[in-house]
Amino acid sequence: MNKTAVTVVKIGGKVLDDDQLLAGVLDSFAAIEGPKILVHGGGKAATEIAGKLGVEAPMINGRRITNDAMMDVALMVYGGLMNRKMAAGLQARGINALGLTGADLNVIQAHKRPVKDIDYGLAGDIDAVDGKRLLWLLEGGITPIMAPLTHDGKGQMLNTNADTIASSTARSLAREATVSLVFTFEKPGVMTDPDDDTTVIPHLDRQVFEYHREAGNIAGGMIPKLTNAFEALSAGVDKVYICHANALADLQRDSFVGTIIS
Amino acid sequence: MNKTAVTVVKIGGKVLDDDQLLAGVLDSFAAIEGPKILVHGGGKAATEIAGKLGVEAPMINGRRITNDAMMDVALMVYGGLMNRKMAAGLQARGINALGLTGADLNVIQAHKRPVKDIDYGLAGDIDAVDGKRLLWLLEGGITPIMAPLTHDGKGQMLNTNADTIASSTARSLAREATVSLVFTFEKPGVMTDPDDDTTVIPHLDRQVFEYHREAGNIAGGMIPKLTNAFEALSAGVDKVYICHANALADLQRDSFVGTIIS
Repeated sequence: MNKTAVTVVKIGGKVLDDDQLLAGVLDSFAAIEGPKILVHGGGKAATEIAGKLGVEAPMINGRRITNDAMMDVALMVYGGLMNRKMAAGLQARGINALGLTGADLNVIQAHKRPVKDIDYGLAGDIDAVDGKRLLWLLEGGITPIMAPLTHDGKGQMLNTNADTIASSTARSLAREATVSLVFTFEKPGVMTDPDDDTTVIPHLDRQVFEYHREAGNIAGGMIPKLTNAFEALSAGVDKVYICHANALADLQRDSFVGTIIS
Repeated sequence: MNKTAVTVVKIGGKVLDDDQLLAGVLDSFAAIEGPKILVHGGGKAATEIAGKLGVEAPMINGRRITNDAMMDVALMVYGGLMNRKMAAGLQARGINALGLTGADLNVIQAHKRPVKDIDYGLAGDIDAVDGKRLLWLLEGGITPIMAPLTHDGKGQMLNTNADTIASSTARSLAREATVSLVFTFEKPGVMTDPDDDTTVIPHLDRQVFEYHREAGNIAGGMIPKLTNAFEALSAGVDKVYICHANALADLQRDSFVGTIIS
């Protein structure tokens, strides 16, 4: 019995701020064979728009808090401007895209992060991603584009990290499909020297990861990303890729450059 | 052979600018029995946001032209802020809503209005509404929420009038379903005296319409609305309702107050 193969791709960062870079990423994403899902983050546009609107997100301990006004900006920029432009962009590439937030089709229900020391405002921690609904769309030839927005089932939209949406989505599909989860970023993969693109580690498993972490070769923001990746694998995701967005078109080819985690 | 009954409801104007009024309309819409589609217009929020962002829509002959910057504002406000909040609001009322622009699922393809005397900018004239896709969603228990936005199939989003989206949508469903098309507005129906709510005309047909038009009882913006309604009926739509948004919950009841056109 062959399970359907599904690719879940997260894009974020600079590619979202530059129409030309984004066009290239949509080309690459469109070239991925088989059922696929695009998850996008925010980029700098929301901060820019918030600034122009005179909306300030309060910062607590260096973390931005989502208040009502910032939530409206997130709905406008992530849920409107970016998500809808990507839908039009993928349609132009022959992909039958559908832009979603967690509220649409109730595809991701979440709850406001409980207040312990800090009230993070309208930050949503995921309760459930409806993998069956996503598979129903994929089987209908539809490519979901997921914005980093969820809802609480009581009418409140919430802000949720796009990496978390991507991995929770991948996990929700893992029982019924063979899932590849791809995190794209500005570098060509996980590197032992972040300044040297030739030091990409092509294959990582837990042992190799622990070795490089102890040696100090892998540090900073890459550690939560990889911890997230290993959790997804434990939850049944088949493979996790970390690569540059331009490498998406080569995911299924031997010429792929990036890190494959299994 | 009974065809499915589908209700297409257009809301616009003041109810979109006031969270409390909108909540009441969503309550009434949720109470409509059977498969249904919500189409929403713009309201004043886009103009306000545009003002704050320093975006100015050029006016030609008293008509606002959609330039690139105004298109972005429309995507943000109609396609993001409003559409997504309504999706969350309907989910909270037990309705499995799905927010759509024309680009999503390629549900409405359009083309930029041809330039004759005036270049209307990014105004989209509808080529086709995919009624089969909408029926597929409705049969899946899904309630589409349509923003007044379309796309040209080449990656460009376009601005399209919500009344036109509502009537084109109703017409696209008319072959396979019994369609009721409801235009809500600030008055309780078509009135012979616009200042007297007790003068609502309960039933209109072409003959009665012509009589009141010639008598000068029906004038102004109501004439294109009614012409639009009669065109929808000619194209196979079963009934057109013109009523206050608060009357939505009573559409299928004898207590309904408003104008029924058939």
